[in-house]
Amino acid sequence: MYVDNSATSPLNPQVLDAMIPYLKEEYGNASTLYFLGIKAKRALQKARHQVAQLINAEDDEIIFTSGGTESDNTAIKSIVLKQLKHKTPENPKNHIITTQIEHPAVLNTCKFLEEYGYEITYLPVDKDGLINLKQLENAINEQTILITIMHSNNEIGTIQPTKQIGEIAHKYNIPFHSDAVQSVGKIPVDVKEQNIDILSLSAHKINGPKGIGALYVKKGLTLPPLIHGGGQENSKRSGTENIPAIVGLGKAAEIAHENLEKTMKHNQQIRDALIEKITTQIPDSYINGSLKHRLPNNVHIRFSGIEGESLILKLAQKGVYAATGSACSTHNLQGSHVLAALQIKPALSHGSLRLSIGPENRLEDVDYIVDAIVETVEYLREISPLWDNKTNTYIGDKFEQPVINSTH
Amino acid sequence: MYVDNSATSPLNPQVLDAMIPYLKEEYGNASTLYFLGIKAKRALQKARHQVAQLINAEDDEIIFTSGGTESDNTAIKSIVLKQLKHKTPENPKNHIITTQIEHPAVLNTCKFLEEYGYEITYLPVDKDGLINLKQLENAINEQTILITIMHSNNEIGTIQPTKQIGEIAHKYNIPFHSDAVQSVGKIPVDVKEQNIDILSLSAHKINGPKGIGALYVKKGLTLPPLIHGGGQENSKRSGTENIPAIVGLGKAAEIAHENLEKTMKHNQQIRDALIEKITTQIPDSYINGSLKHRLPNNVHIRFSGIEGESLILKLAQKGVYAATGSACSTHNLQGSHVLAALQIKPALSHGSLRLSIGPENRLEDVDYIVDAIVETVEYLREISPLWDNKTNTYIGDKFEQPVINSTH
Ligand SMILES: Cc1ncc(COP(=O)(O)O)c(C=O)c1O
Ligand SMILES: Cc1ncc(COP(=O)(O)O)c(C=O)c1O
Repeated sequence: MYVDNSATSPLNPQVLDAMIPYLKEEYGNASTLYFLGIKAKRALQKARHQVAQLINAEDDEIIFTSGGTESDNTAIKSIVLKQLKHKTPENPKNHIITTQIEHPAVLNTCKFLEEYGYEITYLPVDKDGLINLKQLENAINEQTILITIMHSNNEIGTIQPTKQIGEIAHKYNIPFHSDAVQSVGKIPVDVKEQNIDILSLSAHKINGPKGIGALYVKKGLTLPPLIHGGGQENSKRSGTENIPAIVGLGKAAEIAHENLEKTMKHNQQIRDALIEKITTQIPDSYINGSLKHRLPNNVHIRFSGIEGESLILKLAQKGVYAATGSACSTHNLQGSHVLAALQIKPALSHGSLRLSIGPENRLEDVDYIVDAIVETVEYLREISPLWDNKTNTYIGDKFEQPVINSTH
Repeated sequence: MYVDNSATSPLNPQVLDAMIPYLKEEYGNASTLYFLGIKAKRALQKARHQVAQLINAEDDEIIFTSGGTESDNTAIKSIVLKQLKHKTPENPKNHIITTQIEHPAVLNTCKFLEEYGYEITYLPVDKDGLINLKQLENAINEQTILITIMHSNNEIGTIQPTKQIGEIAHKYNIPFHSDAVQSVGKIPVDVKEQNIDILSLSAHKINGPKGIGALYVKKGLTLPPLIHGGGQENSKRSGTENIPAIVGLGKAAEIAHENLEKTMKHNQQIRDALIEKITTQIPDSYINGSLKHRLPNNVHIRFSGIEGESLILKLAQKGVYAATGSACSTHNLQGSHVLAALQIKPALSHGSLRLSIGPENRLEDVDYIVDAIVETVEYLREISPLWDNKTNTYIGDKFEQPVINSTH
């Protein structure tokens, strides 16, 4: 049972079917003049429309990229490059506002910019995982060139108030970028209604192929490209178009769009059943982040006294594939920066589990998953030095170190 | 008959077969801990080895990117970002040497850098399409941070003396980047022997998938990434790994490596037959660029008195799919910057045709292709105002404008 759809999701067979002709006979370069090129160009246009529809954008506001990470990098670095030309010592134009809980694609881009003299405000979040709009407005200054705040979080699934963030940004004439990689296909994402100027999305999170994503850039906002070359994507992102993957993203977007209501209901039912059963059956288990402002497909729960990596590996032995924190963070073994921002102590944060639901999960599977988790947590607590088996209570507090927030 | 393999090439069925499992059941994120992730990671390692072998590199010198364009951008911009920290008014470290005939991925990156105060030397080439090594050495100054010269040209197929270029670069301690997108799999590419420090390659030019490429960076040369994020590719290029495409690139590299000798012979036989027959059967037809220092799969030929786009479309009607100039340049309708660098007059350069041979072409097809070209050129000359049908000679010189070299 795969419940790690926020890490990556299986390719929808319909999506693969749509891609196959372009992996076989329709291999043309969209820039060529003869029929193979023309077919490729048509496929490109169709996919652009499908993606635009999903987020209520215009077709020519969509730029295809190699994924969510490139989209995030492009959004931020293009704004920086654009403003660089207007930089003066009095007007350094060097300030960006983001949050402490962004995906590394945003966070590490911001840290990189700090090395080059940029000032970054990393807004904190409350215990629910939500930013404070007053704090956001107070952080804005004359040098602010960008507000980049994620649509929803990849670990704990909390959804930020994008509409209001966009209103504040626009009051001060600052572009608002939102990383919506985890939101599209899961909740309504509407760039117009939600006041978003630049938006990142990625195909492999919505049962599309890996290595393809898109960047929405609102009409009128002209940004220099991150990747220069042959002038593809209306000179906004060069490189021979990856037609099979673009067709796959288009199809995945279309399916996500058509099924959004159904998907939300499906995910939420399973999520709520999982949360209800796990928290009632396992003592000392807590949901990380807001329950209310949360992706319908996200369960993020911590169990005191255990270690997440063992939990994941034990669960995998039982056929339940889940994540500790975010998949993207397993490259560094520090605790989750998101849970640190929620002021959750390191030892507790390490005992966290993320279940992210996809279309292949079924309500009937909930009991199996819950049983596997209950057994595993009980077993791990039995052998844990942080758990007192006599009293059935957590005794880790005495080993506890203070919270270190890695984004500061 | 597809003879446009330099624009893009059909996916080898063996490559697709290798990819299919990763497009279906093996969809794991290489960062996850359970078996799906482990399988993905193993596939990644294997592909890295396959690519490294093709160019005589070490496995950990290979970084996967989204294609040749991203590789070129990364090579150049990473060097710039690295040096930016050492920039002072006395030591601006702002000079790059390249050539007038680079692919737009290099050329437009350099032009972009000019907007930000970088000095670029665009070396000219001789009538053969080759740079002059003395000129290269003379162009080097205290501020030179990079020499970026393509391995072989995507339009006319001429091969630069990389080994000697690398020697000169290293004499002055300057890194040497070479765009080898058109060379790998076509001629021996050996980063050690050819003194290359950074090299770009792309899968879809060697019967691999689109949207994937690699950058070779010599051990010891540490470069900041162009794309920041979750720390994939040893933190040198972030973004969820595109495993199916990476597996495809690996397989394509393996096949290219194993078959190199055979491929070269195959291509050269067909190339030489095409050149011989076309130039003898069509008066006033000339090969663009060196015959000797030329990719075995490249025919680039100009016919005075005709217009390339009509030629391509007419040939397509006869089932011969070829290119005028480079596929990537059809986004702008200026004449080819490569042919301009060869001092070929615009009207003549417009009458150029590129045939690029692939493994699917056969010697038996040569006559069909030649006949189609002969018929089409004859037809187009008949209706051309630049051709005198009575004397069977070119009369376009009187309409001719001076050569404009777009890279100056
Ligand atoms: C919120 C968020 N942003 C960005 C990314 C990066 O997207 P990609 O994996 O397509 O590079 C991810 C997933 O890894 C994500 O969850
Ligand atoms: C010499 C050369 N460099 C770079 C590229 C760009 O590679 P890609 O199409 O993979 O972006 C191409 C092909 O378009 C090329 O021929």
